Amino acid sequence: MPSRPGQAPPGPQPLPGVGSIVAVGSGKGGVGKTTLAVNLAIALARLGHKVGLLDADVYGPNVPLMLGTNGQPKVLSDQRIEPLEAYGLKVISVGFLNPGDKPLIWRGPMLHSIIRQFLGSVEWGSLDYLIVDLPPGTGDVSLSLIQTVPLTGAFVVSTPSDVSLQDGRKAIEMFRQMKVDIVGMVENMSYFVCPHCQHEIDIFSRGGAEKTAKAFGVAFLGSIQLDPDIRKAGDTGKPAVLEGENSPHAKSLFDFARTVVARVDEIKSSASAGVIQIQ
Amino acid sequence: MPSRPGQAPPGPQPLPGVGSIVAVGSGKGGVGKTTLAVNLAIALARLGHKVGLLDADVYGPNVPLMLGTNGQPKVLSDQRIEPLEAYGLKVISVGFLNPGDKPLIWRGPMLHSIIRQFLGSVEWGSLDYLIVDLPPGTGDVSLSLIQTVPLTGAFVVSTPSDVSLQDGRKAIEMFRQMKVDIVGMVENMSYFVCPHCQHEIDIFSRGGAEKTAKAFGVAFLGSIQLDPDIRKAGDTGKPAVLEGENSPHAKSLFDFARTVVARVDEIKSSASAGVIQIQ
Repeated sequence: MPSRPGQAPPGPQPLPGVGSIVAVGSGKGGVGKTTLAVNLAIALARLGHKVGLLDADVYGPNVPLMLGTNGQPKVLSDQRIEPLEAYGLKVISVGFLNPGDKPLIWRGPMLHSIIRQFLGSVEWGSLDYLIVDLPPGTGDVSLSLIQTVPLTGAFVVSTPSDVSLQDGRKAIEMFRQMKVDIVGMVENMSYFVCPHCQHEIDIFSRGGAEKTAKAFGVAFLGSIQLDPDIRKAGDTGKPAVLEGENSPHAKSLFDFARTVVARVDEIKSSASAGVIQIQ
Repeated sequence: MPSRPGQAPPGPQPLPGVGSIVAVGSGKGGVGKTTLAVNLAIALARLGHKVGLLDADVYGPNVPLMLGTNGQPKVLSDQRIEPLEAYGLKVISVGFLNPGDKPLIWRGPMLHSIIRQFLGSVEWGSLDYLIVDLPPGTGDVSLSLIQTVPLTGAFVVSTPSDVSLQDGRKAIEMFRQMKVDIVGMVENMSYFVCPHCQHEIDIFSRGGAEKTAKAFGVAFLGSIQLDPDIRKAGDTGKPAVLEGENSPHAKSLFDFARTVVARVDEIKSSASAGVIQIQ
């Protein structure tokens, strides 16, 4: 985002036309953060909202694969970037700019600059929600994001395993330290139903995220079961929520989306006026 | 590692007394990288080797929890750091220095400095293998590590899901670009056997890592099944390999350890003399 003349070093600046900016964090990777970010964004669009999805996971940008979309975003005449469209979402991902298997071997300052560009130079237009898929951990990208735009809030994805919860607690503490409102915590891969014998099996344990949410005084946003069909839907570029709210694979994802909407409304109505300043 | 007087900016410097340095990378988090690093290190120790384990995953240091060990490493009179001991391993983790739920919200340069300190100031003594658990991704820590010590090699952990493989390919490409020998690729969470009906279920798909290894011309190091007991063992600080090679939960992990030993020997015997210089 360009700084304006005569202004002090820029704090977080609102994105004009964007109602709520919701970040999806996790502490630990591989817990289904991107799967939930993608399904949440599409579910919100299906529920009638205008939604953008920013894939800020610069080292592992899986959003293009999960949306089955690829292509080079257009650069407009004024150097602004036009996001791609997929399933009714406006989407931007470093995966569009750097497709294929070549990694971005970048140190922190490069990350900072691309995140600022994605936020400030992309033509998001008018959005009700901009969902931001953060990389796992508590590093450069999260810092840059928080310092660049005022987040409405962030939620934390964890599996119920102790190692995932350990990192999830760190993510909650990070958002707290950075004065970001916490939308809540969601438990992913919560339990598994054997497709052959219908027994429920707690592969990654169960219930830990709800307990952690309670212990940390944050909202619990629901449990999403470990469902091979949700994973397959992501691997094939057709996220599970596309099946509609009545699909057994999508129901908990739509419930989750409605809970996020309610919590974001709550945060916005209780927020004091003005931009949150980072200490 | 302190630079020596009269020396040019230091390239990778060998760690005196350490035979092989093997990094464990993944591209994507949550694929069981730390679980495999911890079990590999203990299996190597059980096979009679002297082993150190460096937890370089500074934002999500899960090694202390998986080893059930904690404590403040002693600082010796010459400012060198004494690693902790657990199950016959010498271990160092940022989790020992920063226990609890407070996150390290650090930008890249801080990471660089802690990694250099962990490698240069820790009193590793004489080791056959130093196993380094990298954070997921292709960022600062991996760069710092590769620039600080000459890695004997690195292997890449992936689940068989397409999103994990996508990031795993990036990790392979990163190591290649950095001229690090690739020990191989291992498939974790490869398939699941229902404990009730014994059906095999490919929750995260199956076989993709072997195919990827073949396509990229790297060794395939084996498949480890998705086993809730391996996860539980990690969550309770008693890694599965402690049950011994005859345990059904540990057998594939010991097989994997032997394959790593063989591949590392192969790399060492074919390596040209002298330190690999990073371009």
